[in-house]
Amino acid sequence: MNFEVTILGSGAALPTSNRNPTSQYVYCNDRHILIDCGEGTQVQLRKYHVHIQKINHILISHLHGDHFFGLAGLLSSLHLLGRDKGLTIYGPQELEQIIRLQLEVGGAKLGFDLRFVHLNGKEHRLLFEDKMIEIWTFPLSHRIPTNGFLIKEKPKERKLNAERFEEAGLSLTLIPKLKQGLDVELESGEMIYSEEYTYPAKPSKSYAYCSDTIFDERIVDYVRHVNVLYHEATFLQDKLDRAQQTFHTTAQQAATIAKQAEVGKLLLGHLSARYENGLKHFEEASAVFENVSVVEDGETYLI
Amino acid sequence: MNFEVTILGSGAALPTSNRNPTSQYVYCNDRHILIDCGEGTQVQLRKYHVHIQKINHILISHLHGDHFFGLAGLLSSLHLLGRDKGLTIYGPQELEQIIRLQLEVGGAKLGFDLRFVHLNGKEHRLLFEDKMIEIWTFPLSHRIPTNGFLIKEKPKERKLNAERFEEAGLSLTLIPKLKQGLDVELESGEMIYSEEYTYPAKPSKSYAYCSDTIFDERIVDYVRHVNVLYHEATFLQDKLDRAQQTFHTTAQQAATIAKQAEVGKLLLGHLSARYENGLKHFEEASAVFENVSVVEDGETYLI
Repeated sequence: MNFEVTILGSGAALPTSNRNPTSQYVYCNDRHILIDCGEGTQVQLRKYHVHIQKINHILISHLHGDHFFGLAGLLSSLHLLGRDKGLTIYGPQELEQIIRLQLEVGGAKLGFDLRFVHLNGKEHRLLFEDKMIEIWTFPLSHRIPTNGFLIKEKPKERKLNAERFEEAGLSLTLIPKLKQGLDVELESGEMIYSEEYTYPAKPSKSYAYCSDTIFDERIVDYVRHVNVLYHEATFLQDKLDRAQQTFHTTAQQAATIAKQAEVGKLLLGHLSARYENGLKHFEEASAVFENVSVVEDGETYLI
Repeated sequence: MNFEVTILGSGAALPTSNRNPTSQYVYCNDRHILIDCGEGTQVQLRKYHVHIQKINHILISHLHGDHFFGLAGLLSSLHLLGRDKGLTIYGPQELEQIIRLQLEVGGAKLGFDLRFVHLNGKEHRLLFEDKMIEIWTFPLSHRIPTNGFLIKEKPKERKLNAERFEEAGLSLTLIPKLKQGLDVELESGEMIYSEEYTYPAKPSKSYAYCSDTIFDERIVDYVRHVNVLYHEATFLQDKLDRAQQTFHTTAQQAATIAKQAEVGKLLLGHLSARYENGLKHFEEASAVFENVSVVEDGETYLI
């Protein structure tokens, strides 16, 4: 089982020749999730060899164009390529209106079921769960209602120590409980302890996504101890005024959130088009928090 | 004075790695016109070094996404880059609703005046004229209302034969009329003939754009004798059934329109993603009409 994120677009509002507007593809335990969908995302998905028909959750943080102007085109292409499997889009309420209007005027009837879950940028709640993953949303602080996202693996089962279990000649029916960490009392009164017959479960991993937002320490609680935190860093600290005016974050501030939340690794993106590269963002953030990468389009990070 | 068209996107509904969805930039006598604006057009404009702030007319043929999904992003970028000069968009009525809704939900107030002229896909009429150019629309035949466009230079003035004019010692006040081809009677009763003192005007050139449409011979009258005709050729003749079902044209049919309309040159585009290149389109069309090019993204053609 893998858990990884591929950066499809690492730029901010103005696309540049090497930074597309924001989009990320998350693969987690055979679940396929797209986060944000700036203009050109469908081309980026093809370029980086993502099987687009496998995507069945699309999370849209907010309705600034650099985070969703590619969605209508992606949906059209999924349809033209013969999709019949349903798709759920989580995003602001008006997104549904915009998408349905664009499909309607084009006379398109999608060959698949399109379901919208409305987010309001104010709630911390579970959006989806199955046996393998959970998807959460939490509020960010931007000029318009904006949602952060957290994707985490479900707690994993302990691994059976098969050799010891066989030696003891125990019934196979005990295995599910032991793997869940439960101790079992046999009819004879003998206690069978999970810890003796299983190895510890691998830790569940988690990934949090924060774009776009002003520096807001309330975020720390939502992303505490995640393995990887993506946080926007539109500006450097010398443009702090501009960051505050536009409700964006500097590299130093993003690193402060990472440090306070004690995350494993910090990814920085959403760089303003004024910066030629991410070198200064890296330096500024690294002075505060040691495990930092400034992302580039096409990179894949293991969570 | 130049008159040229740059192909920004030569593909059909599904973008491929080398064919963006439809868009063209037309430069005509210092006028800057964008025709259609598929997803990714703003990046193509930058890639091919078009000064995007000079564009002041945008013509949208119809509301299939591959012809307009890049418009909202382009408008946002024009705004972010500081535009204050007005812009006129000619397209179906619902386009205004879609664009204004997307700007509104993003909380954007454009720094420039955005004017919409509504087209209904049924009229042959003049949309714009000034001293240098005319822009016309005419109906195409597609699954939804679709507009063709014709851009032509205004009739040019005759060029003064300055040497002969000076030798004759005539008043400079005669020049405007002579350049317009008018003969003038002097107070003495002497006739001054325009043809004697001027050279013939250079011919006015014209460019016609037909995408998307089924093969429709009514188009011939609208594009007769244009210097360059762009006509969609989504399919080859062996997919004639598919072309008819989807209201598209084959390369052979597009060449038939070009031949009947006696145009100077035929450009073919809007190739289905199923074709690796335009070689067969070229061969099929060339058998009917001799001056054909299959366009590629980034090419510029002189009109």
